[in-house]
Amino acid sequence: MDHDLLAGHLQELRRGTVVLACLATLEDPRYGYALLETLDRAGFAVDGNTLYPLLRRLEKQGLLTSEWNTDEARPRKFYRTSPAGAVLRAHLMTEWRSLDRAIVGLDGETS
Amino acid sequence: MDHDLLAGHLQELRRGTVVLACLATLEDPRYGYALLETLDRAGFAVDGNTLYPLLRRLEKQGLLTSEWNTDEARPRKFYRTSPAGAVLRAHLMTEWRSLDRAIVGLDGETS
Repeated sequence: MDHDLLAGHLQELRRGTVVLACLATLEDPRYGYALLETLDRAGFAVDGNTLYPLLRRLEKQGLLTSEWNTDEARPRKFYRTSPAGAVLRAHLMTEWRSLDRAIVGLDGETS
Repeated sequence: MDHDLLAGHLQELRRGTVVLACLATLEDPRYGYALLETLDRAGFAVDGNTLYPLLRRLEKQGLLTSEWNTDEARPRKFYRTSPAGAVLRAHLMTEWRSLDRAIVGLDGETS
């Protein structure tokens, strides 16, 4: 099996889950790098080149809010899930569970 | 919540699952429209404009094979998962289960 082909299909399967993982994790405010670490520990392999633009996109869509924290020497932008983001998260979670039932069903039938 | 925004994020979550669903379902050969019906019954909403180009792409990638069946009045192209497709399917299924554990884990922590 060609490595790039496998990597591409795995990437496609993961892509949509990162949004869901961000919205769920950012119920507690976090700055970008701390979010990256949390996602990594939770089992979502995502790098900064993917995550940081995604955070800006979700903020622009009104799904995250952000605030600068200047208490420490190095100011950091903290992101948090907005009320609209929490609504989207609930929709995505429902969809995820429904897809999971569908996939587990197919797998049981044919393997 | 903006309808297009929701639809876009749902679409992104579903996209990668259609490949997995095709590879699992086509362990038994099927022509395009029969596959569409099977996927629909199994809970994967996908339309022909998405599915037919995807089948051609997967065949080009060596993940499906195809054969014309001319036994009936109307010849039909039957697709079937290739050995490489079965390997990819196993990888995607493992990844799906791992993503599901990660997502269910996040959901339990924060909701």
